[in-house]
Amino acid sequence: MESWPSVNRSQFLFSPSAGRTSPLILEEAFYFGMDRENSARNPNCFGKAISDGKKSRDPLCLKNVQNIIPNKNGQQYEIGPKKTDFSTMFSHDLLPQKNGEENTKHFLSEVVEMLLNYVCASFDRKNKVLDFHHPHQLKEGIEGFSLDLSDEPENLDQLLVDCRDTLKYGVKTGHPRFFNQLSTGLDVVGLAGEWLTATANTNMFTFEIAPVFILMEDILLNKMYEKIGWIANEADGIFSPGGTISNLYSVLIARYKRFPEVKTKGMASLPTLVLFTSEHSHYSIKKVAAILGIGTENVILVKCNERGKMIPSDLMLKILEAKEKGCIPLYVNATAGTTVYGAIDPLTEIADICEEHQLWMHVDAAWGGGLLMSQKHSEKLTGIERAKSVTWNPHKMLSVPLQCSAILVREKGLLQACNQMCAGYLFQPDKHYEVSYDTGDKTIQCGRHVDIFKFWLMWKAKGTVGFEEKINKHLENADYLYSILKDRNDFELVFEGKPELSNVCFWYIPPSLKDLPKSQERNKRLNQVAPKIKARMMEEGTIMIGYQPYGDLVNFFRCVFSNQATRRSDIDFLVDEIVRLGSDL
Amino acid sequence: MESWPSVNRSQFLFSPSAGRTSPLILEEAFYFGMDRENSARNPNCFGKAISDGKKSRDPLCLKNVQNIIPNKNGQQYEIGPKKTDFSTMFSHDLLPQKNGEENTKHFLSEVVEMLLNYVCASFDRKNKVLDFHHPHQLKEGIEGFSLDLSDEPENLDQLLVDCRDTLKYGVKTGHPRFFNQLSTGLDVVGLAGEWLTATANTNMFTFEIAPVFILMEDILLNKMYEKIGWIANEADGIFSPGGTISNLYSVLIARYKRFPEVKTKGMASLPTLVLFTSEHSHYSIKKVAAILGIGTENVILVKCNERGKMIPSDLMLKILEAKEKGCIPLYVNATAGTTVYGAIDPLTEIADICEEHQLWMHVDAAWGGGLLMSQKHSEKLTGIERAKSVTWNPHKMLSVPLQCSAILVREKGLLQACNQMCAGYLFQPDKHYEVSYDTGDKTIQCGRHVDIFKFWLMWKAKGTVGFEEKINKHLENADYLYSILKDRNDFELVFEGKPELSNVCFWYIPPSLKDLPKSQERNKRLNQVAPKIKARMMEEGTIMIGYQPYGDLVNFFRCVFSNQATRRSDIDFLVDEIVRLGSDL
Repeated sequence: MESWPSVNRSQFLFSPSAGRTSPLILEEAFYFGMDRENSARNPNCFGKAISDGKKSRDPLCLKNVQNIIPNKNGQQYEIGPKKTDFSTMFSHDLLPQKNGEENTKHFLSEVVEMLLNYVCASFDRKNKVLDFHHPHQLKEGIEGFSLDLSDEPENLDQLLVDCRDTLKYGVKTGHPRFFNQLSTGLDVVGLAGEWLTATANTNMFTFEIAPVFILMEDILLNKMYEKIGWIANEADGIFSPGGTISNLYSVLIARYKRFPEVKTKGMASLPTLVLFTSEHSHYSIKKVAAILGIGTENVILVKCNERGKMIPSDLMLKILEAKEKGCIPLYVNATAGTTVYGAIDPLTEIADICEEHQLWMHVDAAWGGGLLMSQKHSEKLTGIERAKSVTWNPHKMLSVPLQCSAILVREKGLLQACNQMCAGYLFQPDKHYEVSYDTGDKTIQCGRHVDIFKFWLMWKAKGTVGFEEKINKHLENADYLYSILKDRNDFELVFEGKPELSNVCFWYIPPSLKDLPKSQERNKRLNQVAPKIKARMMEEGTIMIGYQPYGDLVNFFRCVFSNQATRRSDIDFLVDEIVRLGSDL
Repeated sequence: MESWPSVNRSQFLFSPSAGRTSPLILEEAFYFGMDRENSARNPNCFGKAISDGKKSRDPLCLKNVQNIIPNKNGQQYEIGPKKTDFSTMFSHDLLPQKNGEENTKHFLSEVVEMLLNYVCASFDRKNKVLDFHHPHQLKEGIEGFSLDLSDEPENLDQLLVDCRDTLKYGVKTGHPRFFNQLSTGLDVVGLAGEWLTATANTNMFTFEIAPVFILMEDILLNKMYEKIGWIANEADGIFSPGGTISNLYSVLIARYKRFPEVKTKGMASLPTLVLFTSEHSHYSIKKVAAILGIGTENVILVKCNERGKMIPSDLMLKILEAKEKGCIPLYVNATAGTTVYGAIDPLTEIADICEEHQLWMHVDAAWGGGLLMSQKHSEKLTGIERAKSVTWNPHKMLSVPLQCSAILVREKGLLQACNQMCAGYLFQPDKHYEVSYDTGDKTIQCGRHVDIFKFWLMWKAKGTVGFEEKINKHLENADYLYSILKDRNDFELVFEGKPELSNVCFWYIPPSLKDLPKSQERNKRLNQVAPKIKARMMEEGTIMIGYQPYGDLVNFFRCVFSNQATRRSDIDFLVDEIVRLGSDL
């Protein structure tokens, strides 16, 4: 035993990994001592390494190690990395506990190492998309993973195990073969942004406690107005907890703009209002009508063509019908990117009709808004600049981590006028800074999560050119899948023609149905194909893709591309996998 | 130059820190080679260290280092830690880029190191709570920190600088001396939970893509029902993006329960509904009335006593008045923990009145719900079990990271009936698992952020006993501040008596006002004291505490305790600091 030479500890370059790797065998440990400053925690060791029975030529110095176990008569030493013994530690050993700093760093580092491995595993095609278990299996507890909560605390080791299991039994939404939802993919910079946001743990209601984030929101919103084609300083907007809430804002403002007395007097003071939206539009418009006291029956569904696009002449007809019934047409929702087909309504024609009838035109571009970042594809949204409000979810096509949705309003001041309640405890007019930056009274919320930083950081990281590349790639992927399927006779496309967005809808026709004539019987059997394949793919965990029936159409698959990691080979795999899982049906 | 001995790389214990420390001087580097597997990136080095001019007795082995610069005729080597040169890297060098794994790990590790330092700094009383800058200063850019976004991407080094500056110019809401909001403090386990949530990046709409989180929500909600005193299997609930949205749910369900036709036909089919809430209650009830088409005028404010508690006899009176006017009393919001005073309405008496008049009783326990976790204090909420719905924000008193709010409903099935729209693309009835776990159709949202995991993990970590300790401590802190202030003659309490919750409201009376008789003039001057002190404390950054006027009362401070890190010495500091900043006013 000797003491450590006079070298300052901070000059050493290595800190032990919090992870546990297999032990290293050392022979002839000729130095074996303690770090002066931190002797109890950081033994050091010196010797020649043995691996595969071979001894290293030169001695190794290992610092900050624990678990030094002499074996073979003390001639060999088995050395593991420094282990923080989390099994004897509890959350009260972490900060703000006095001297909890080191424990806190070790614990969070251990968590992060796990997360980094998960991130890498998510992108690795050798891994499954999910490890499916039924609800009752997870509830009963699997291999020591218990969801139950008790009165007594668990130690930190157990928490780490729980974290690992939570990831293990979850779904890798960043996996290149996860096609199940409009929001897929895992953006590393966005993730860093979300980690920082969580650490800052603040609230968007005032500049006072979120100075940087409030300004970032302002700057990003201005960028979004520009992309739409609005004049930045004349428009308004706010980030909300999702597309449905953003759509709620749009109807709320439309109603307030036309009938400001509704805020104080309620709907009782108003005539019967009706809203128009297409058959293919998102169900949130109906949900909003129910919430706002308008009623779902007062949402008039406008017919769509075979591509799922609203038919303007039918809109016109429905408006006239509503007027004849004595209702007041208030609002038209045009969709830029329907959920299932990815259809874009004819925005210019709808804008013309809205102007003619003085209706509020909203564009639900929750899904399709991303096209505005692409010079190649943005013209598909021509007419959006004529909308009075727009919903745009960067958490969909731009792959900003969930949640990130914006409601954008062409007229400044409306959001504030419609929603403000002037709470004295938050929005004091006698603050010492410019209080117009206290945007919290524009919202229908009070506290509001910081959804902006991850998007801001991603924009810094990619620039518009990076987002453009991304969007173009999603659409190329959709084109590629379309081009494969249209030439195969074991697949049928739900609608003809190239995809405008990144949705591709199709049936897989197993051999048993191939020669069956179109009939009710065939439909009945075809209807069962997608759910059965879906069940198998979830059990096997190789891919995930959604399906649904639609109107008269029996269950079909909808593939959507919004994951940067997806390559052509993944699309080939998807097609092959569907065939593999379904050819016996 | 020699090759590395045949030791498997993964057996080595040290990985380089991503941080940059000062270089280490080595002499007589007798081994200088490359790692076989990763030769380009991971040079290794061997030699004797020199520090303070003294040479180490034994040679050191340094692995994975870069910046090996020979000096003194090649006899000495200056060695820095491995540096990833982020200034030449961009987001497209990260995953899913081929071979982006290592870059991704290095980049995220660098971010995490920054975050860990921030976490530790947040708890360190030597640091300021904030480094205040006015909006225009931040907008113009400070020392290279520009919020502007461009078309071209920035390199990763710039992103790291931006992250650092974002934290630097923000507010440390976890600081032991941040008393500004109901949500304060930074829980390390909650933070780990939020980091994991961000990494999993999924959505709460279906079991399909959030199997573990959906079940955790179910389990946690059951725990919350129990704490309220409801029967778990008969109750219902859901996590929402905040207290205002949770309160919105309560009115929405109350309206639907009594008039289910409102969902389809809207408010036009209904008589004039009125809601009751106290003068001191949160402004969200009015906000909700505006949104739901009920109208703010139909929110009847019930008088409060001097402690801010609703006066039941006034509630009774107002209900009768409303009935006389032909309105339909629908709903009473009782507050358990008002925003400013922390008052708890007399729940039992309100429950009696609601039963008598068949009104929906909601308890807004967004702030005070935490008391239910404390055996010592939960009796203050006696009567809450008689409510039909309860709002409870674990992100407030329980310090779960933002956002975490729940709406709890005593009757099962109402949430679903009120809100469901049965979207075919999400809620397919022919799924292969038990679809009752697809809770997404209960919400007013579509996509929904995972707010549950951090809370679940914290519960695992603390158990109810840990939460109880926490709550008790907050109330002890409030007691302590109260006991100091009541004995001082340079402070005046806004209301007499011990705090029931952790709010303490007070005026500071500077010497210049001390001998002034109560008068309009004194009020006018006293009104300016709190804003001026607040401005100074923000400029200096030493503490943060909120102020507001209330009714006839001029600006006073409201101190709230919800931060586990706050100690008595911080409360002493708060009092001293207010005197220091305000004694010349």
